Amino acid sequence: MHARIEQAAMPHDEAGESFFRELVEHGLIIPSQVDGVVGRGARFEEVLNRFDALVLRSDDGQRAEAPMFPPVIERRILEKLHYLDTFPHLCGSVHSFFGDPRQALRLATRARQGERWGEELEQTDVVLAPAACYPLYPTLAGVLPPQGRLVTLIGWAYRHEPSREPTRMQSFRVREIIRVGDPDTVLAWRDAWHVRARDLLDALGLPIVSEVASDPFFGRGGMMLAQSQKAAKLKFEIQVPIFDAAQPTAVCSFNLHQDHFGKAFDIRTADGQVAHSACLGFGMERVVMALFRHHGMQTDDWPAAVRALLWP
Amino acid sequence: MHARIEQAAMPHDEAGESFFRELVEHGLIIPSQVDGVVGRGARFEEVLNRFDALVLRSDDGQRAEAPMFPPVIERRILEKLHYLDTFPHLCGSVHSFFGDPRQALRLATRARQGERWGEELEQTDVVLAPAACYPLYPTLAGVLPPQGRLVTLIGWAYRHEPSREPTRMQSFRVREIIRVGDPDTVLAWRDAWHVRARDLLDALGLPIVSEVASDPFFGRGGMMLAQSQKAAKLKFEIQVPIFDAAQPTAVCSFNLHQDHFGKAFDIRTADGQVAHSACLGFGMERVVMALFRHHGMQTDDWPAAVRALLWP
Repeated sequence: MHARIEQAAMPHDEAGESFFRELVEHGLIIPSQVDGVVGRGARFEEVLNRFDALVLRSDDGQRAEAPMFPPVIERRILEKLHYLDTFPHLCGSVHSFFGDPRQALRLATRARQGERWGEELEQTDVVLAPAACYPLYPTLAGVLPPQGRLVTLIGWAYRHEPSREPTRMQSFRVREIIRVGDPDTVLAWRDAWHVRARDLLDALGLPIVSEVASDPFFGRGGMMLAQSQKAAKLKFEIQVPIFDAAQPTAVCSFNLHQDHFGKAFDIRTADGQVAHSACLGFGMERVVMALFRHHGMQTDDWPAAVRALLWP
Repeated sequence: MHARIEQAAMPHDEAGESFFRELVEHGLIIPSQVDGVVGRGARFEEVLNRFDALVLRSDDGQRAEAPMFPPVIERRILEKLHYLDTFPHLCGSVHSFFGDPRQALRLATRARQGERWGEELEQTDVVLAPAACYPLYPTLAGVLPPQGRLVTLIGWAYRHEPSREPTRMQSFRVREIIRVGDPDTVLAWRDAWHVRARDLLDALGLPIVSEVASDPFFGRGGMMLAQSQKAAKLKFEIQVPIFDAAQPTAVCSFNLHQDHFGKAFDIRTADGQVAHSACLGFGMERVVMALFRHHGMQTDDWPAAVRALLWP
């Protein structure tokens, strides 16, 4: 059934480059000169939007509040969450120019001469969102309604990890669903969605693997954090082989935050406890790439059952 | 007809703050602690998407190629366009951490202690897109087809201009349509859309003003650039009073680039000339705010003719 993948006995990097070229040749991806920063063609976007609509047709998709946040968020959010302790290498901080005309001239001259000009800038009050749901939590500060909150949003996430792997972009979209409330409600919700998301991706004909996972924490201390995250089963991923059968790619992840966000932003349940939270996120570009990889580059040729789900 | 605006004899800043509070109270805007960085409520997004669909139902909207680009673009695009010469104060450069564990510890400590930590970072190869169409032009390098190119895209633009004016966001969406080809084709296209966009906004019941405009160039030299831009009629804006009748807000702008992008990225017409280009952009959040301002905070109460256009 998944002959395309099984035939690919190429080394990992070569398989990635080959798949990238295939996406470019079919107008699905528009390359740039920076690794992991690409445009998406119209047919790529069409599939992404169809998959998004499918997620939003789920019960939670229909019931959830649906705000939208920009790709930049308040810098203090990263600070409050101690993001720099664990993911300094992934952060994207927005810097701008605050100087006078003389300094502006020096800046422009350096830029024209092909020199680095970052030193002429200073940090602003905003950073790029490393996850679509980060800007949500500060807005939940205070006491939740008795049933907690259920929110869905799609947003651009940024991770500074330039890579030639087609599935590892610096800037990508995630459709998230977020549940905030008491610990039992949140845990049960996470577990229910774990099954639901598997079923959804399975119905789309994707050969899925699900496993306990960990975040890419920085440095030696990070290895210990990753181990304890795995032991506590705080993070699950649903993985699909995309360009390498031996190394599947995470297309959906589930994160149990416990009271991480509740504590940082003083979110409380109706009975006064620190709120717990969990989220799931579909890596939208990865889902789309998995669909093109497993069903072929022409959506007209996709299996009828898959088409019926995406174009109902 | 536009009594809401005419009644508002408040000073400009106060009128802005009052309108912002009204948007927040109605769940249309979700504030943060940083000026110009806000979330959008579900009803705000619904109107934005409906207006976007209306633009895309136009002839050009249907015919145009429709790629999607992320909110970060290659840094070299700003450098090639000499953006830092004229808009250094608006740029958003993405900086990240490239150091070792010892430096990471210093970074994390500074962040935890509430100190600035930007100096621990270095400039990356990406910047925030100051306009939705910037990432398009490098992808057009080479020889155009005989009819040129017609492209539409929606994207997040970033401008570092923190402001309490509700219509002046740091991060906002623009629906652009871009025409690239020979000078006459491009100029005629720009002029046709000037009429078309006026008609479209007029049909939505917005009291429009159209005028020759200029970009907010930096410094003393910038004033001269703005004057010559006005004299050459390179930029038009369609403005609508939103929170201040005396100072209308640009909701749509038309830019004739002449050979600016064609030269920078070596885009040529089929007969070998440097290509010209023009674009129009609807400031999506501004259009939505104008609609809520002029028709009221409840979309159910909007005039039937406006509803028929947005919810056909």
